[in-house]
Amino acid sequence: MKKLINNAEDVIDEQLKGLASAHSELDVHFDPKFVCVAEGVKDRVAVVSGGGAGHEPLHAGYVGMGMLDAACPGQVFTSPTPDQMVEACKAVNGGKGILQIVKNYTGDVMNFQMAADLLRDEGIEVRNIVIDDDVALKDSLYTAGRRGLGTTVIAEKVCGAAALEGYDLDQLAALCRKVNTFGKSMGMALTSCMTPQNGTPSFELPEDEMEIGIGIHGEPGTERSKIKSADEVTEILTTRILEDEAYVRSLSEWDPESESWVDVEVTDIRFESGDEVIAMVNGMGGTPLSELYTVYGKLAEVAERHGIKIVRNLVGNYITSLEMAGMSITLVKVDEEILRLFDAPVKTPALRWGI
Amino acid sequence: MKKLINNAEDVIDEQLKGLASAHSELDVHFDPKFVCVAEGVKDRVAVVSGGGAGHEPLHAGYVGMGMLDAACPGQVFTSPTPDQMVEACKAVNGGKGILQIVKNYTGDVMNFQMAADLLRDEGIEVRNIVIDDDVALKDSLYTAGRRGLGTTVIAEKVCGAAALEGYDLDQLAALCRKVNTFGKSMGMALTSCMTPQNGTPSFELPEDEMEIGIGIHGEPGTERSKIKSADEVTEILTTRILEDEAYVRSLSEWDPESESWVDVEVTDIRFESGDEVIAMVNGMGGTPLSELYTVYGKLAEVAERHGIKIVRNLVGNYITSLEMAGMSITLVKVDEEILRLFDAPVKTPALRWGI
Repeated sequence: MKKLINNAEDVIDEQLKGLASAHSELDVHFDPKFVCVAEGVKDRVAVVSGGGAGHEPLHAGYVGMGMLDAACPGQVFTSPTPDQMVEACKAVNGGKGILQIVKNYTGDVMNFQMAADLLRDEGIEVRNIVIDDDVALKDSLYTAGRRGLGTTVIAEKVCGAAALEGYDLDQLAALCRKVNTFGKSMGMALTSCMTPQNGTPSFELPEDEMEIGIGIHGEPGTERSKIKSADEVTEILTTRILEDEAYVRSLSEWDPESESWVDVEVTDIRFESGDEVIAMVNGMGGTPLSELYTVYGKLAEVAERHGIKIVRNLVGNYITSLEMAGMSITLVKVDEEILRLFDAPVKTPALRWGI
Repeated sequence: MKKLINNAEDVIDEQLKGLASAHSELDVHFDPKFVCVAEGVKDRVAVVSGGGAGHEPLHAGYVGMGMLDAACPGQVFTSPTPDQMVEACKAVNGGKGILQIVKNYTGDVMNFQMAADLLRDEGIEVRNIVIDDDVALKDSLYTAGRRGLGTTVIAEKVCGAAALEGYDLDQLAALCRKVNTFGKSMGMALTSCMTPQNGTPSFELPEDEMEIGIGIHGEPGTERSKIKSADEVTEILTTRILEDEAYVRSLSEWDPESESWVDVEVTDIRFESGDEVIAMVNGMGGTPLSELYTVYGKLAEVAERHGIKIVRNLVGNYITSLEMAGMSITLVKVDEEILRLFDAPVKTPALRWGI
């Protein structure tokens, strides 16, 4: 197995040990059970996320000032457990409630709901907002409905900044929901990836083929084809995102009035000429930066042709799939509020600016 | 060929088009012939580097405020030409001379010397300082003497800051030489890489083997073995670096007094207990961040055991080999001057802090 690891069982512990050692300048506590801001949270909403490992820097790399207050790492491609989430949320509970940002994978959604119920039993108010921004397909090996992709990174950044500004829990939940409905993503892969536990490729992809619409766990995409050029691939993904119709679905959210989980109808935007966006070209882990910039060059051209103005961009590895070669594109429409919060200072291992 | 590219001949142009498009907020002019600070340089020394492409973000990603004033990208794994270097240096000539930072590969060394001679003919003073920090081996497919590795990144950062502080050309050359003698690196690979021109792996590495001491063009290293654990690999590389004896060699430098190229004897440090260092764990392009942090965790432990204090660190992809899976470790001893200059503000596509 071509990996720089020691034992498959220890990969999470060991990465976090390295993160802790490399980022002792940050006020962050790194622990395999949960990573959190060491000083805790006082008198404001705390923002918490988490999910299976293998997508680094997501989520542990985004804990710090102005982004996540805590993150729970699961094993590779495996949801963390409700008790981890409960402990993490209690460690950063500042008395004003918890926003849980949840990627739409069945295990994550279920476990974060269980955690929320347990926390409420202890008198802590919680809202769970699901990110389901992948336009490639509905339903997959890991998901009912659309999968959560790159919009998660933007939601964590924007909501972290809003929590610092003093948004209350209802406002934060509404903001997170807005970012989700404003964001769309799609990915592709040139190679498979391999979990340390299995030691064999998650799927087979012949030497001359690529897969479009792939998920971050190597779940099948929409189309397999001979390898296309960077321009063609970028055109396919960007066009699918920009021409994706408003997506209407029900997402389960806690209703404080009826004190029960209710199905909330959520509707995405459809991008329109004149929209301003944050654009992310995200590497899957094994793709060189030079290729991501080649993709970005074409993305900027396609966006401009559609009248879409890219006002901020991120090019690099932000939500990965171990050593998979490939990339995903995320576009998040911004309004004044989202842009202000995106630009606010942030200080985490993987995202840092303005400070 | 599993790459996100269009035509093999256009890869440099297209990456730079993407860089330019993504970093329009920077005052940098991106051109396939040379990348440079758009406003030019006034009344101070300019710092210039360059080399074959395929090592991104090196060097084009380091052009900007507080680091390189210009960089010349060659084709993949191929030195840029003297005329590119001459044009780049003239574009950023601020009347106080040019420091050329040159990785020790035969083509680069020769072409930067030719460029320096041509520039002097036009009345521009130039010093070439060679970086040869790879402790793995002397002489390789591409090099006489030791190869240039990660210390190049630190030298570019430190010298860029010193140029802004107003160091004159002699002082800057001495500083760059000092950083080179204070820095040592060593790399390893789990997989080969493939240039777009060839479309076949640069070398073969069986499924259960790794190569220690590899160069950034896939030049052979010192030892091929069954894959070892991250801890074992890190221990081998770090120990080789820390126990490397003071290395004495002759490097060709321009002597302004005799107006000729002379062989200057240069001697590296040997690390000693009590030394403070900048530590870099550098991904070769295809290795996930999570694995680099695993390596960093062990590196910190080995350094501590040797009495070496890591005062700054960089963990990520800084000097890569296309999509190669693997990593290199660089340790640069710091004194008050190097640390102050390393910490100074920098604003480039790939390195940005303090601003």
